[in-house]
Amino acid sequence: MTQIAVLAGDGIGQEITTQAARVLQAVAPDLTLVEAPVGGAAYDLHGHPLPQETLDLAQQSAAILFGAVGDWKYDNLPRELRPEQAILGLRKAMGLFANFRPAILYPQLAQASSLKPEIVSGLDILIIRELTGDIYFGQPRGVRVVEEGPFAGDKQGFDTMLYAETEIRRIAKVAFEAAQKRNKKLCSVDKANVLETSQLWRDIMIEVAKDYPDVELSHMYVDNAAMQLVRAPKAFDVIVTGNIFGDILSDEAAMLTGSIGMLPSASLNASNQGLYEPSHGSAPDIAGQNKANPLATILSAAMLLRYSLGREAQALQVEQAVATVLEQGLRTADIYSEGTQLVGTSEMGDAVLNAL
Amino acid sequence: MTQIAVLAGDGIGQEITTQAARVLQAVAPDLTLVEAPVGGAAYDLHGHPLPQETLDLAQQSAAILFGAVGDWKYDNLPRELRPEQAILGLRKAMGLFANFRPAILYPQLAQASSLKPEIVSGLDILIIRELTGDIYFGQPRGVRVVEEGPFAGDKQGFDTMLYAETEIRRIAKVAFEAAQKRNKKLCSVDKANVLETSQLWRDIMIEVAKDYPDVELSHMYVDNAAMQLVRAPKAFDVIVTGNIFGDILSDEAAMLTGSIGMLPSASLNASNQGLYEPSHGSAPDIAGQNKANPLATILSAAMLLRYSLGREAQALQVEQAVATVLEQGLRTADIYSEGTQLVGTSEMGDAVLNAL
Ligand SMILES: CC(C)[C@H](C(=O)O)[C@@H](O)C(=O)O
Ligand SMILES: CC(C)[C@H](C(=O)O)[C@@H](O)C(=O)O
Repeated sequence: MTQIAVLAGDGIGQEITTQAARVLQAVAPDLTLVEAPVGGAAYDLHGHPLPQETLDLAQQSAAILFGAVGDWKYDNLPRELRPEQAILGLRKAMGLFANFRPAILYPQLAQASSLKPEIVSGLDILIIRELTGDIYFGQPRGVRVVEEGPFAGDKQGFDTMLYAETEIRRIAKVAFEAAQKRNKKLCSVDKANVLETSQLWRDIMIEVAKDYPDVELSHMYVDNAAMQLVRAPKAFDVIVTGNIFGDILSDEAAMLTGSIGMLPSASLNASNQGLYEPSHGSAPDIAGQNKANPLATILSAAMLLRYSLGREAQALQVEQAVATVLEQGLRTADIYSEGTQLVGTSEMGDAVLNAL
Repeated sequence: MTQIAVLAGDGIGQEITTQAARVLQAVAPDLTLVEAPVGGAAYDLHGHPLPQETLDLAQQSAAILFGAVGDWKYDNLPRELRPEQAILGLRKAMGLFANFRPAILYPQLAQASSLKPEIVSGLDILIIRELTGDIYFGQPRGVRVVEEGPFAGDKQGFDTMLYAETEIRRIAKVAFEAAQKRNKKLCSVDKANVLETSQLWRDIMIEVAKDYPDVELSHMYVDNAAMQLVRAPKAFDVIVTGNIFGDILSDEAAMLTGSIGMLPSASLNASNQGLYEPSHGSAPDIAGQNKANPLATILSAAMLLRYSLGREAQALQVEQAVATVLEQGLRTADIYSEGTQLVGTSEMGDAVLNAL
C-alpha cells in the first residue's frame, strides 16, 4: 500500500487539494490518500500548526500533497504558532532539502505575463533552491542587548547564515543532475563578493562541477540574477541557489509568467520522499468561493507521481490532461482573458478528470 | 571652498565621471573637484582598492562623485583586495547608511523595458536601502570546521545578519521623510515570518510610523516584494529595506525600466556627506570605446547638488538638461532605438552641456 498524506491547510487549500486528490485517485487508484490538518486549521483544532499526528502521518507517507497555509487571522499569534511554521517544520523534520520550482509559461497563457511576449514566450526555467539550511535555520538567532560600541544598550536582532560543505554538495549534485536532463546549463547564484557562506558555496559548486563535465556551470551574484530574470529570463536553464536567495528569486521567476496559479513545486529529501505544493499562497480573500485555480496543485500531484513514486507515465498523463483543458479554453479567474471560458475550481477539476 | 572628490574607478568609470564632472563644473563653477584612484585602478597603483589617501580625500570632501569599480582581471585577487571592497570600505568608514535608488522610467525610453508599456509607463519609485549594517558587515563571519552534529568535520561558511534599533530607526526616519515629500506611501520590506532581525525591523518601523501619521506604512515579505515589482511596480511609492534585500530589490526595480544606464544613486551619512554613483556597473567590455551612457552619472551629480550641497536649483538645471537631450532624440547605444540618433559618451556630455 502506497500512502499519500493530504494536508490541505488554510484559505483555498481545501478546495485546491480536493481537486488534485480527485485527479490523483483517478490516475493512480491504488494510492491511499489520508488527510490531516496543518497550518492555521491545525492550530484551531489542536493549538499547533504542525501537530505531532500530522508530522507522524507525513513521515510515514511516501509523499505529501500540500495545499497552502496562512490567513490574516493568525497574524497576531506568536511566531512559533503561526501557520508558516508548519511548512518550515515539515521541511526540517523530513530533511526536504531540494526544492524544485519550475517557471514555465504555457503558450496559451502568454498574454498573462506583465513582460513583453518576446521576452517570455516559451519560458521554461527551473529553480533549485536549498531548503533546510541557510539563515532559515542557522543558530544563534534572536534579540539581545548590544554590550559595547556605538549601539551599546540597544536591542539588536540577529540571525546566522550558514552552510556546511555536505549541504552544499548534496544540493549541487541534485542541480547538476537536473541540468543534465535539460539543456545542460547550470547557473549558481550567490553573493560571494560579500558573504563568506557564498564563497564556500561557490568553491563547492566548482568542485562538484568536475563530476559533470557535460554541464556548463556559471556563477552570478544574486543582485545581478534578480536583474537578468527581468531582462532576459530565457537565457537561464537551471538555477541553483541557497534558501533565502532562492525564496526571493523563485518567486520573482514565477511571477514572470503572470500565471503563478499554474506553477507546481516539489521539495525532496535524500530518499525521494517529497512535499508537493502549488507555488502560490493560501489566498484567504477568495477562499471558499470556488474561484481558486487548482491547476498548480494538480501539476504538483503530477510531480509527486514522477519524483516520489517514479511513475513517469502517470505524471505525463496528468500534465497532458492539464494541457488539454487549457487548449479547450477553460480558465479560472486568475488566468482568464477575453475569448476564453471562465470556470470555477471544481469545474476545472471536472474538466481535468474528463481529459484524463 | 567646497571640495568634491571624483573617484572614477575602473572600466567605463573614467569616461562617465569625466562627463559628469564637466557638467558639475558648468553649473557650479565654484566647486573644487579633486580626483583620486579607487578600485582596481587604485590596486594597480598602490596595491589597495581604497588607499588611505583616497579615503582621506573622500572624508574631507563635501561629497564624492563615484564612477564604478570592478574588472574581470581582478577576479583572482583575495577578497579584501578586490575592487568592490573600495565601495564597501567607503560606505562603512563614512557611515553612508542611507542609500537612495530611484527607479524612474523616462517617457522617451518606455520601449526599452522588457515589461509591457501599461505596466511600467510612468514608473517612479524610490528604494531606500540601509547600507552600513545587516549581513554585509555583521560579525562573526568566516569559514570554520563543524564540531558536532550531522556535519561534524565539515567546513562551514557563516555570516551574521544583524540590526540594532538605532540603525533601524535612523533609516526609518529617512524613509518616512522621503515618503512625506512624495506620495506618502511607504512599504517596508522584510522577512519577519522567518528572521528575528526582520521582526525587530518591523517593530521599529511601526514605532517610528507614529511620528509620521500622514504616511501610510505597509509591510511586505521580501519574496512577495520581488513578485509585486514584476506584477505591478507602479503600486509602490517608497520602499525601505535592509542592506541585502535592498541590494536585490533595487537592482530588480532598476531593471524594470530597461534603462539602467539612466539611473543615479545617492548614499548619505548623518551629516549629508554623500557618495553619488550610477546604478550600473563598470562594464569593462565597452571601456574606453566612447560607448558608455554618462547620463546616470550626470544625474548622480544632480543628486549630489541637491542632497549634499542643498542646491536644488542647480540640481533641477542638470535634470532639465538631461530631459532636453532625450527630447532631442540623442541616445547612447544602451538606450538606442530606431528613429533616434546614436551618440557616444563624450557627444552625450557635450549635448548636456549645450542644453544647460
Ligand atoms: C511561508 C514562508 C516561510 C516560505 C519560505 O520563506 O520559505 C514561503 O515563502 C515559501 O517560499 O515556501
Ligand atoms: C559591489 C557590491 C559589493 C555592491 C553591494 O552588494 O552592495 C553592489 O552590488 C551595489 O549594490 O552597490
